[in-house]
Amino acid sequence: MNAGLVIAVDAMSGDHGAKVAVPAALDVLSATPDLEIVLVGRDEVLRPLLGSRLPARCSIVEASEVVGMDERPKDALRRKKNSSMRVAINLVERGEASACVSAGNTGALLATARFVLGMIPGIDRPAIVSVVPAVHGHTVMLDLGANPDCKADHLVQFAVMGSVIATDLHGLERPRIGLLNVGEEDIKGTEEIREAHRRLAAAPINYTGFVEGDKIFSGDVDVVVTDGFTGNVALKSMEGLARFIGGVMREEFTRSPLRKLSAIGARPVLNAVKVRLDPGAYNGASMVGLAGVVIKSHGGANRAAFANAVRVAITEARKGVPGQIEELMARVVAASEPPGA
Amino acid sequence: MNAGLVIAVDAMSGDHGAKVAVPAALDVLSATPDLEIVLVGRDEVLRPLLGSRLPARCSIVEASEVVGMDERPKDALRRKKNSSMRVAINLVERGEASACVSAGNTGALLATARFVLGMIPGIDRPAIVSVVPAVHGHTVMLDLGANPDCKADHLVQFAVMGSVIATDLHGLERPRIGLLNVGEEDIKGTEEIREAHRRLAAAPINYTGFVEGDKIFSGDVDVVVTDGFTGNVALKSMEGLARFIGGVMREEFTRSPLRKLSAIGARPVLNAVKVRLDPGAYNGASMVGLAGVVIKSHGGANRAAFANAVRVAITEARKGVPGQIEELMARVVAASEPPGA
Repeated sequence: MNAGLVIAVDAMSGDHGAKVAVPAALDVLSATPDLEIVLVGRDEVLRPLLGSRLPARCSIVEASEVVGMDERPKDALRRKKNSSMRVAINLVERGEASACVSAGNTGALLATARFVLGMIPGIDRPAIVSVVPAVHGHTVMLDLGANPDCKADHLVQFAVMGSVIATDLHGLERPRIGLLNVGEEDIKGTEEIREAHRRLAAAPINYTGFVEGDKIFSGDVDVVVTDGFTGNVALKSMEGLARFIGGVMREEFTRSPLRKLSAIGARPVLNAVKVRLDPGAYNGASMVGLAGVVIKSHGGANRAAFANAVRVAITEARKGVPGQIEELMARVVAASEPPGA
Repeated sequence: MNAGLVIAVDAMSGDHGAKVAVPAALDVLSATPDLEIVLVGRDEVLRPLLGSRLPARCSIVEASEVVGMDERPKDALRRKKNSSMRVAINLVERGEASACVSAGNTGALLATARFVLGMIPGIDRPAIVSVVPAVHGHTVMLDLGANPDCKADHLVQFAVMGSVIATDLHGLERPRIGLLNVGEEDIKGTEEIREAHRRLAAAPINYTGFVEGDKIFSGDVDVVVTDGFTGNVALKSMEGLARFIGGVMREEFTRSPLRKLSAIGARPVLNAVKVRLDPGAYNGASMVGLAGVVIKSHGGANRAAFANAVRVAITEARKGVPGQIEELMARVVAASEPPGA
């Protein structure tokens, strides 16, 4: 029913709840003149964070419940029909919001969004897509954990969705798409992966072939496609490694007074490195494949990171990502059908 | 036929061939009084690298061919019956060497070793195991790429083999073993992984449950078990990320004269960090599950790294790793059978 740009913010979920979500949403609101924000949650919690009266273009929609971070998706779906997460998604479903953002429980958000919004025609399952820093800026990667078991069909659909995200969110005209494998030769990997490889080679997208794990960072491709098991493990491994390297550096830089001194000299460099690798700058994973824009913020996101997730929601809503996916997927299916069939 | 410790070194394979393998083998030889080294390769290539006459406890076994780094495993197995790789493995099979080391083509080495040596009773497939640096020193990880598609049986066998390696190579009495998954709850992951999880919980090893990717580095477990697809992708991703972070640091440290100056001050720290993360220090992946000790060196290993691989071969030969695996696997199978069955 809305003509404008309206983002529904689940203002209660995540590790920090309203005290991060509300100021983050207001930051983006004041910087974006045509934006409306709907804060979803308990009025008595949200109101005190908003000053003496509601800012312009900001409203509250009451939702009495919150989905716990460890709650089972099934239970959240069945029992928490008035959760802030569910109500925010309902607003998208009814066309009252262009997109929604939540820092809540990933599994519950995925299950609820799928149930409420349904899938884009041609896409079987939602995937979680985000970016990781890389030599050329960053690489779009999916699926990061929605689907542990994937067939060739799903991998092809992920490639289509990754291509749309790279174009719409990152401005790449012909994003180069690689399929993650244990080698670059045609004979490598599982049967499902080889089948996806054959189909992608014939699809009207810029598929460049198999890539190994190190290519996530090398700048050789813009999008890396994989199943949700591998993608999730790779992402968590990289997070773990980055944290480990950071810890080793801290330890070594504080081992002696002289080294502490050298740390002061090196601080501008270390800060610059940190900024370039900062996962917060990349906060806002898209749950693509759903018939509506749903953005997942890290549960532990701070104000700046949550604001990033809201910006991702705005961009996807403006570009009409679900429609773009539907259109590209239809072209991929058409290209794979023999003429006259 | 040999009572002593004899290591067969494929002295021709790898990116650098004999000019790395020979001096590396001699380094270890001179430091290890009871060791004999058999260098396998072309006499005319090896002899000039050995000085005027053969060192004590060192001999040459002639092998006229070399398996190419890109050769298909099948082709190497069928056509290169006199390759340095094959002849080195033959020495192990005939009991003339206690173990062999090769920097050659991983797929060919795996296929040839499996064909020549066969498997340990109770183990269906060989796995590639190595270590990655971690908070507590390092974590043993397998499979790193031998088996893209794994069933529950294989994962259980990998856990047994990882446990033996952690004990025999790294001196851990009750190594803590984790199974890589996309979450730590029992309901997470694929059916095969959940089945392996149930069986491992009943096995006479120190299985601690599911772990996510970040736990590879956290010190929470000593061994991380996964299928060869995920393991290979995770390993390559981590290598790529480490290289990327190194590159970003180099870039930031050279951005201005002042920053270059700070790099001089920070050099001792950066070198210490590099040493702690150095993959060369961890060179020497074991191909476990084979009825004989086969160690794979990185193709691009330098002299020090290749020497490390030789030392891994020595330790596994001394400890009798294949026999240890057979014994522990038999105990795991016995524990899983209902009494009286």
